[in-house]
Amino acid sequence: MSRGLFECVPNYSEGRRPQVIDRIIAPFQARAGVHLLDHRADADHNRLVVTLVGEAEPLQEALLESAIAAIAAIDLRVHAGEHPRIGAVDVIPFVPLRGVGMGDAVSLARSFAARYARETCVPVYLYEEAALRPERRNLELVRKGQFEGLQAQISLPERVPDFGEPRLHPSAGATAIGAREFLIAFNINLDSRDAGLARRIARAIRASSGGLPKVKAVGVDLAARGLVQVSVNLTDYRVTPLRTVLELVRAEAGRVGVRVVETEIYGLVPAAALLKEAVTDLQVAGFDEAQVLDLRLLDMAAGTE
Amino acid sequence: MSRGLFECVPNYSEGRRPQVIDRIIAPFQARAGVHLLDHRADADHNRLVVTLVGEAEPLQEALLESAIAAIAAIDLRVHAGEHPRIGAVDVIPFVPLRGVGMGDAVSLARSFAARYARETCVPVYLYEEAALRPERRNLELVRKGQFEGLQAQISLPERVPDFGEPRLHPSAGATAIGAREFLIAFNINLDSRDAGLARRIARAIRASSGGLPKVKAVGVDLAARGLVQVSVNLTDYRVTPLRTVLELVRAEAGRVGVRVVETEIYGLVPAAALLKEAVTDLQVAGFDEAQVLDLRLLDMAAGTE
Repeated sequence: MSRGLFECVPNYSEGRRPQVIDRIIAPFQARAGVHLLDHRADADHNRLVVTLVGEAEPLQEALLESAIAAIAAIDLRVHAGEHPRIGAVDVIPFVPLRGVGMGDAVSLARSFAARYARETCVPVYLYEEAALRPERRNLELVRKGQFEGLQAQISLPERVPDFGEPRLHPSAGATAIGAREFLIAFNINLDSRDAGLARRIARAIRASSGGLPKVKAVGVDLAARGLVQVSVNLTDYRVTPLRTVLELVRAEAGRVGVRVVETEIYGLVPAAALLKEAVTDLQVAGFDEAQVLDLRLLDMAAGTE
Repeated sequence: MSRGLFECVPNYSEGRRPQVIDRIIAPFQARAGVHLLDHRADADHNRLVVTLVGEAEPLQEALLESAIAAIAAIDLRVHAGEHPRIGAVDVIPFVPLRGVGMGDAVSLARSFAARYARETCVPVYLYEEAALRPERRNLELVRKGQFEGLQAQISLPERVPDFGEPRLHPSAGATAIGAREFLIAFNINLDSRDAGLARRIARAIRASSGGLPKVKAVGVDLAARGLVQVSVNLTDYRVTPLRTVLELVRAEAGRVGVRVVETEIYGLVPAAALLKEAVTDLQVAGFDEAQVLDLRLLDMAAGTE
């Protein structure tokens, strides 16, 4: 496991003060075995989203160092922003990438959570695949009431944290630590100005209203472009591939004479998600990922060949 | 350039004696910076095809060591096989893979050729992108008459080698060293028993008879499976993508009511060739290869990020 790679996407409740943001990301910039792929601060959300790739050991060290900086600088008692949050370090999801599976990500999340609670005095909730209680698989329930609401409820049996004392850190709240599959952000733009149509299609395709499994979707108005969008999060492309989502949206839109103008993939996407589409589209029989030169090179580089 | 990666696919005129094959491939198995991805010996062709990936310096050292083993063990005066050949080491093509371009592959082929001729006393012809004479871009012309025919012609002005003396090595002949793009072997199987149809479609799509650029194709009878095949070599997937070949074959076959059963990709394929198909198929706008997680990991591993 130690040579395997995880993605980690910690979210911090700070999207406005550049100096604080710098201190939070600094631990990811100088450590061997950890790579800072992306970081985006949003002032309206007052939130910082960091994308990391690394091996388990250096990743944990850097996350802890970064969390300590965030906890020292962020006071949730005076924090406001549009995004729901329970902590200065709000969520830390681990995603298995290469040479590791979901079981490894769950183990990593749980052992890191124990250490995190001990060293920072911030209580931790385990969520999604790493959850110890079934209802905590759902991050929305873990974050219910946010920092302010959780304050009053944390000692209730159903809100007691999985690690740490049953009281919030006074200024830094609590942290949700979890394990999940890679998330693909896939937007489908429709040649229509009817935002209601986009919302109806989103409702038709998403899992929560009986649509495709592992699909989250909302309808969005792209007024400036004269289009509407079905904005999709695919939480497991192995269960529901990109193509299936596109075909269903195309069919739903087509019933009212609306066509798909284009799609967008926002942020990162695993090669496998696209290779699968190409292989299907080209009717390739008996294809093996080991035939993909770049993935072979990656295995060579990782010494796993 | 020194940190860039090349593919190299040397072909040796030995497909029958396992001990000789072992001596030829041994230099590729133990050297840092060189990776032996594949090797296939064919007894009928009496030929060995090796697929390597590596950096320029270690690749050249290993190739030279391997060539010396092949030259010592193979005597073309007593060699017979179905595949045309001019040398014990018959061809050495260099392919730019990552962090290098065709110009680098041409430079590498030419400088390696000079050293190769000097150290082995085997004369060298430069071919394809590395050719110094336009007619030598075509490997078939370089290999015309094979070992036996070239013997009599090598001192003619039009057959004089690019490096080395204008006479064949007595037992090891000559070697063609070149630079080319990555070659994709793509087979399209048709629901028909008419091998003539496959040959007609091959003729319709290949560049040599006025079809698609960078496409070579032959028709093949797959009698045991009750199918016929259009067997395609794509010599530059950036010029003619896989999809274009498939669509044209599908259209030609469709005109006589024959359908494409499936396709096969034989051997390695660059991720970019398939990603391009997926992105087109999914109508993704503004896509950047840097969004592909695995390619980012590869860049990180290579230290080029």
